[in-house]
Amino acid sequence: MTATYDSYLRHMAQLHALNLAQGLLSWDQETMMPPRGLEARAHTRAVLSGLAHDMLVDPAFGELLDGLAAQELPHHQQVNIRETRRDRDRAVKIPRELVTEISRVSSLAQKAWQQAREQESWAVFSPLLQELVQLRRREAEAVGYRDEPYDALLDAYEPDTRVADILPLLDTLREGLVRMVRAIGERPPHDDAVLRRRYPVAGQMALSRRVLQDMGFDFRAGRLDVSTHPFTADLGPTDVRLTTRYDENDLGNSLFSTIHEGGHGLYEQGLPADRAGTPLGEAVSLGIHESQSRLWENLVGRSRPFADYLLPLLREHFPGVADDVDADALYRACNVVRPSLVRTEADEVTYNLHILLRLELERELVRGNIGVDDLPALWRERMREYLGVEPTTLREGVLQDIHWSFGLFGYFPTYTLGNLYAAQIFAAARADLPELDKQMAAGEFYPLRDWLREKIHRRGRELPPRELCRAVTGRDLAVEPFLETLAAKFGPLYALEPGEILA
Amino acid sequence: MTATYDSYLRHMAQLHALNLAQGLLSWDQETMMPPRGLEARAHTRAVLSGLAHDMLVDPAFGELLDGLAAQELPHHQQVNIRETRRDRDRAVKIPRELVTEISRVSSLAQKAWQQAREQESWAVFSPLLQELVQLRRREAEAVGYRDEPYDALLDAYEPDTRVADILPLLDTLREGLVRMVRAIGERPPHDDAVLRRRYPVAGQMALSRRVLQDMGFDFRAGRLDVSTHPFTADLGPTDVRLTTRYDENDLGNSLFSTIHEGGHGLYEQGLPADRAGTPLGEAVSLGIHESQSRLWENLVGRSRPFADYLLPLLREHFPGVADDVDADALYRACNVVRPSLVRTEADEVTYNLHILLRLELERELVRGNIGVDDLPALWRERMREYLGVEPTTLREGVLQDIHWSFGLFGYFPTYTLGNLYAAQIFAAARADLPELDKQMAAGEFYPLRDWLREKIHRRGRELPPRELCRAVTGRDLAVEPFLETLAAKFGPLYALEPGEILA
Repeated sequence: MTATYDSYLRHMAQLHALNLAQGLLSWDQETMMPPRGLEARAHTRAVLSGLAHDMLVDPAFGELLDGLAAQELPHHQQVNIRETRRDRDRAVKIPRELVTEISRVSSLAQKAWQQAREQESWAVFSPLLQELVQLRRREAEAVGYRDEPYDALLDAYEPDTRVADILPLLDTLREGLVRMVRAIGERPPHDDAVLRRRYPVAGQMALSRRVLQDMGFDFRAGRLDVSTHPFTADLGPTDVRLTTRYDENDLGNSLFSTIHEGGHGLYEQGLPADRAGTPLGEAVSLGIHESQSRLWENLVGRSRPFADYLLPLLREHFPGVADDVDADALYRACNVVRPSLVRTEADEVTYNLHILLRLELERELVRGNIGVDDLPALWRERMREYLGVEPTTLREGVLQDIHWSFGLFGYFPTYTLGNLYAAQIFAAARADLPELDKQMAAGEFYPLRDWLREKIHRRGRELPPRELCRAVTGRDLAVEPFLETLAAKFGPLYALEPGEILA
Repeated sequence: MTATYDSYLRHMAQLHALNLAQGLLSWDQETMMPPRGLEARAHTRAVLSGLAHDMLVDPAFGELLDGLAAQELPHHQQVNIRETRRDRDRAVKIPRELVTEISRVSSLAQKAWQQAREQESWAVFSPLLQELVQLRRREAEAVGYRDEPYDALLDAYEPDTRVADILPLLDTLREGLVRMVRAIGERPPHDDAVLRRRYPVAGQMALSRRVLQDMGFDFRAGRLDVSTHPFTADLGPTDVRLTTRYDENDLGNSLFSTIHEGGHGLYEQGLPADRAGTPLGEAVSLGIHESQSRLWENLVGRSRPFADYLLPLLREHFPGVADDVDADALYRACNVVRPSLVRTEADEVTYNLHILLRLELERELVRGNIGVDDLPALWRERMREYLGVEPTTLREGVLQDIHWSFGLFGYFPTYTLGNLYAAQIFAAARADLPELDKQMAAGEFYPLRDWLREKIHRRGRELPPRELCRAVTGRDLAVEPFLETLAAKFGPLYALEPGEILA
């Protein structure tokens, strides 16, 4: 390969095609594939992973990148070369055999996880989890780290972010949240009964599409389907596929899942299509991705202005069901704080305590300070400590998330980073868009979408996540904007003075 | 690569994964993909085609195959090596650049074909068609042939079958059909009004699934979806995806499309899963594939016993719609013979005249005896000659099929071969299954499905299609069984004596 930027683009286009095919294989597996197709699908995905790995670590491609890095290139080309070298440097360090083995063991582990849940048996899952922990430790050693092996794993999802960078933030966060949960717990509880009336699924489907359309999601470049666990599949900015789930007796379930995935979807659709297949056409990190979904779900979807927008839509899509409800009541129902066992059902205040618990446990696991068989008891203990509730089943406890069965360690913290980024970004948007509340109440979400597109989406991987945060919000990532946002909302909702809810 | 059968299997498993991914990419494009996803999809498919081509023509793989061919291997291994060499020998002769160019031009041609139909303009399509003809001629020259270039193209779909082999059959067929169509045309016409009442789509969907289930289609290893043109997607025997289409005022449309694709689907599900990814796990030819779909559609689905099975299902799924109809009337409605303009809507008698017309025109085109701009007039002329009807629009004439816009020349004859094979195979099944009519009337289709599985499906590419025909039916492919089957059905239906309908 001669070191021209064009040959770089040609090589990336091949790699991109494999990644797009992988995106479809994975989306289809969760939404469309008949059950007996699983084995062939696992094989197909493993082979394509291997081919993509080969293509990325190809020594000739390495030389091409080195050659281009030594040239004076336009800024956007430099960024692409820098980021592709970053990806390649990591991939080169991981033996192909380890890539394949992780893929193989995690296929087995996913089945074992399901069986363990059905049988309430930790022993069914723990040997494979143990294997996955060891494989990921090998990966961390292969990749290398400065402080602790967990950093090497976290870096795959959140570039340039180490545990030491965020630990002080997380300590402040834990303290603030525990205090807030206790203060709210002493007040009379609210309930979300109005969202748990009978909302026919056809109406929920129509409402989901309507809200996504109003948010600015382009259905000519995307879809909305159903899956057990809602997710967003990335097949490039011209084909973004969201899923949600419908429960006739729980409108909040589909509505907030849809808005959440819609936030992810707008990020994907907002990536520059003319950079597709290169880092400048890719999302920068899972933390920033989650900031988009949480911003739309919580800071838009559960806001007071949104209740004004939502109320007439409820009356339109579910005649007679919620005619007695006003926007204030709807807003309260969307913001019930109540410690619970299951992360995906947690409210805005308690959610990050679920994440902190996971982060702590998996960090100790990867360090080797605890073993997999310590997890069930530690889980119960820490749930009691942070949230005051304790699971009686594994299914509602340590076996609730699918992530570990995929071998995903270092992934959970990106959820909390997303929440912190979201609060900070939304505050910046609010400063730039003085009419934002009025616009949201009127269902005019385009100004916000376009602001996010301009400030974040269209930039792809131009800046690492923490730098992007500084560029967009004018300050380093911090916990205070998040805690203040919560206090400003839940203080009035639960009749708490600022001093009672914030330290 | 050392010449062991295991290294052959490993290489084939990689190639298989690419083919499975291609299968999904193509199915999704027709059923699920949002419109703006087209460009990225075309790119993805082109790249994967290229990778699969590279993997097949890989010189080291060629040496491996040569080494294995020189060894004494068990029968099934010999067959796989023989057939893979066959595939590879063809692929090696076709320059990669030609593969890519055909893919590129046919992407453009498909769009042009759609525009040409909308605008009723041959000129919009003809330049690209001209290019495709030239590219395919180049392919034929590269692949080589004995008699005429068309053979080299036909061979890709129907191995070991040359025009000279089937020409005498087709002449007999044309003569017999033209005679039969004229004889029936002199009788009072039947109508299918009973199938054109209002059949709600939900009921049609339920009926489609029910019929497929009774045929023995395994929904744990397959799906049924909707697309503009019904087709069957092959993602291996554990994931077979059918499509159909629903028209509230045309029950026959969905019913016979579903049964037709169900026949294809049973073939795919009946291929031996433990041979998946090797020729012994693949369908032997398009002609044999079409024999399965046409056998179920026409020889089962439009038979008198099937009407007995269908009638109570109609009453169950569409209460009150067809209560006045008896099985005889239903049978007559399913078997109306009427010369028409559009192939896909043609009945069992006139259908093959549509194919013969196409075969003749494309054979002349590839030979260079006619040019693309001669097609519209020749199409009209021959329609008048064979069927006595003449299109007034291009859309109902020369622009009705999508095949040429894909550059598929040599594909159409496999439809007629399928019809001939079907009649001969069904006669053999009937001889082996003396209770067949009784079973079909009772909805017991498993004996027939299992007979087809045993005799045809499970054999994969063990025998070339014409040998398979001899092995299953005890005789060479012939036209007489087909014409006799038609005469035995349509003679009584149209009150014609054997001498009036057969020569």
